[in-house]
Amino acid sequence: QYSSGVRKVTLIPGHGIGPEITVAVQKIFEAAKVPIEWDEVDVTAVRGPDGKMGIPQKAIDSVNANKIGLKGPLMTPVGKGYRSLNLALRKEFDLYANVRPCKSMEGIKTLYDNVDVVTIRENTEGEYSGIEHEIVDGVVQSIKLITEEASMRVAEFAFVFAKENKRKKVTAVHKANIMRMSDGLFLRCCRDVATKYPDIKFEERYLDTVCLNMVQDPAKFDVLVMPNLYGDIMSDLCSGLVGGLGLTPSGNIGKNGALFESVHGTAPAIAGKDMANPTALLLSGVMMLRHLNLHKEAQMIERACFRVLREGKVLTPDLGGTGTCSGYTAEVHGTAPDLA
Amino acid sequence: QYSSGVRKVTLIPGHGIGPEITVAVQKIFEAAKVPIEWDEVDVTAVRGPDGKMGIPQKAIDSVNANKIGLKGPLMTPVGKGYRSLNLALRKEFDLYANVRPCKSMEGIKTLYDNVDVVTIRENTEGEYSGIEHEIVDGVVQSIKLITEEASMRVAEFAFVFAKENKRKKVTAVHKANIMRMSDGLFLRCCRDVATKYPDIKFEERYLDTVCLNMVQDPAKFDVLVMPNLYGDIMSDLCSGLVGGLGLTPSGNIGKNGALFESVHGTAPAIAGKDMANPTALLLSGVMMLRHLNLHKEAQMIERACFRVLREGKVLTPDLGGTGTCSGYTAEVHGTAPDLA
Ligand SMILES: CC(C)[C@H](C(=O)O)[C@@H](O)C(=O)O
Ligand SMILES: CC(C)[C@H](C(=O)O)[C@@H](O)C(=O)O
Repeated sequence: QYSSGVRKVTLIPGHGIGPEITVAVQKIFEAAKVPIEWDEVDVTAVRGPDGKMGIPQKAIDSVNANKIGLKGPLMTPVGKGYRSLNLALRKEFDLYANVRPCKSMEGIKTLYDNVDVVTIRENTEGEYSGIEHEIVDGVVQSIKLITEEASMRVAEFAFVFAKENKRKKVTAVHKANIMRMSDGLFLRCCRDVATKYPDIKFEERYLDTVCLNMVQDPAKFDVLVMPNLYGDIMSDLCSGLVGGLGLTPSGNIGKNGALFESVHGTAPAIAGKDMANPTALLLSGVMMLRHLNLHKEAQMIERACFRVLREGKVLTPDLGGTGTCSGYTAEVHGTAPDLA
Repeated sequence: QYSSGVRKVTLIPGHGIGPEITVAVQKIFEAAKVPIEWDEVDVTAVRGPDGKMGIPQKAIDSVNANKIGLKGPLMTPVGKGYRSLNLALRKEFDLYANVRPCKSMEGIKTLYDNVDVVTIRENTEGEYSGIEHEIVDGVVQSIKLITEEASMRVAEFAFVFAKENKRKKVTAVHKANIMRMSDGLFLRCCRDVATKYPDIKFEERYLDTVCLNMVQDPAKFDVLVMPNLYGDIMSDLCSGLVGGLGLTPSGNIGKNGALFESVHGTAPAIAGKDMANPTALLLSGVMMLRHLNLHKEAQMIERACFRVLREGKVLTPDLGGTGTCSGYTAEVHGTAPDLA
């Protein structure tokens, strides 16, 4: 899918701390001689021809041309009529699978030390359909939309992912005891796909049970696949187990493109103060490199990043350190043996 | 609402381990001289006049007459047309608020030692509306129903609960950034009610963020109020932090009745083997006693239960011990100083 040689990649620095963590990633990638040419675009809501606020056309064109991008956090203006630009991007490019690996990292002290799970979240429908009505005053319905098509492709994605990454088990997470038809359909699709992958263990678990088991014994889980909203919460929960959104990467994958992003906020309070932690964006970049088959570079950068975290000398304030974004960055690309 | 003197209480032992943990609670209540007369009824699905499987009329009549009940776990037969009897009971009596306190207990070793939260879950609508359609083949919609009426009364319940129990803060948990109209309505109701309780702090948080923060620092939270499904998962998550469903109580409260229940399963594999842990049902019974204003008895039983857990001599296998259900029960009602 991707040419060898230099790849053009859309870069969306985003808002708040976005630009500084983006510079951090660019510096580290440069030090690792990653064969990437950045196509930087701004994604700030603009009024489109239909009068609605949305993604600027230039950004859309860039992703459509490059089919791959790295993005920092975007601010969604408050007020009626604004929808999250993060979501708009996923929708625009039909990025149907949201992949969020959470793995305990040495040097990052949490209550858990054996987390190694990957949440695969359906990224286009479910509770995120955007369809809502006020039937009569004070009576609202929101529609959770589950289709066979979207369920099949994300289930297929989960098993292919498990296979390619030598994972042993896929757990389908659902509430089909309550939403018998919608989650029932999702679950049937997972079962169907599972039969094609006899080497990968398949299990089905209730969402509430998974939450309970996850906080008691995360080693019970491996790859998890689920509808949109469940993925939203499970991925945040799992991220919390290993240190939070400042550390965990994410990728949105579609048939015709992929966008890798850090899913933490714009942190306006510390923006521009050289205090931001670029790890989540950096590791999202590493996921992107693997997606581009740049495994050597990915490995090199990931190792350098993990080493710096493990040594713990330049941790940013969110991790309890007194380091700076630029200091951390220099440590990763400057003194880490693999990248020196 | 409740007469003084001896109170008649509906008792639903349920299935699997239900009967043995019910006997345990009865013995302990007897030792504490709780002024209760049990009205025991069976809740096994029967075919009603409409041809559907449901709750036996005798059980309905009993709860309607007594307006209060204690129940063990119920088995829901697998197969089309069966809905959970647990849910059917909540619905039948319009028990609109589901209260689940989770507090770290001495003697129960988990990764957390400072959990003290209460989940208050809307119990009648939301994603549990039961309304689903297959629009065309492979396209299903489930309706999440949010009404002002149900949102107002559960929000009001949460603040009254906070006030009566000297709690400091209520957090409304939502995804109004996604479900702007439905969760938006729920949130507005919480805000409205909050203005009437200036002494109780009010905050609003996204569900995903609460999951993340809860596993990192549960001391951030106090009372939480939220729509049905969110409550289902948050309460299980919180229960996991303090030891699991075998230990945490729950109450379903309505205008005209209340049903207290352990929310663990029927555990058929250990049923009848004197291995079951009666704590969740016992503490649900304690919640019920407080609801009946039997505070002295509640306090006495709770203290005895906590002491036995703390001493750890007769813990059941689910807690890593080798004790029996009857041994644990005897310890609580026999040798615990408060109950001796
Ligand atoms: C920002 C928000 C709309 C988004 C979501 O709900 O999906 C976020 O929580 C995420 O997980 O990427
Ligand atoms: C048994 C099941 C239908 C129920 C629910 O989903 O509410 C359970 O998980 C609970 O929390 O009481």
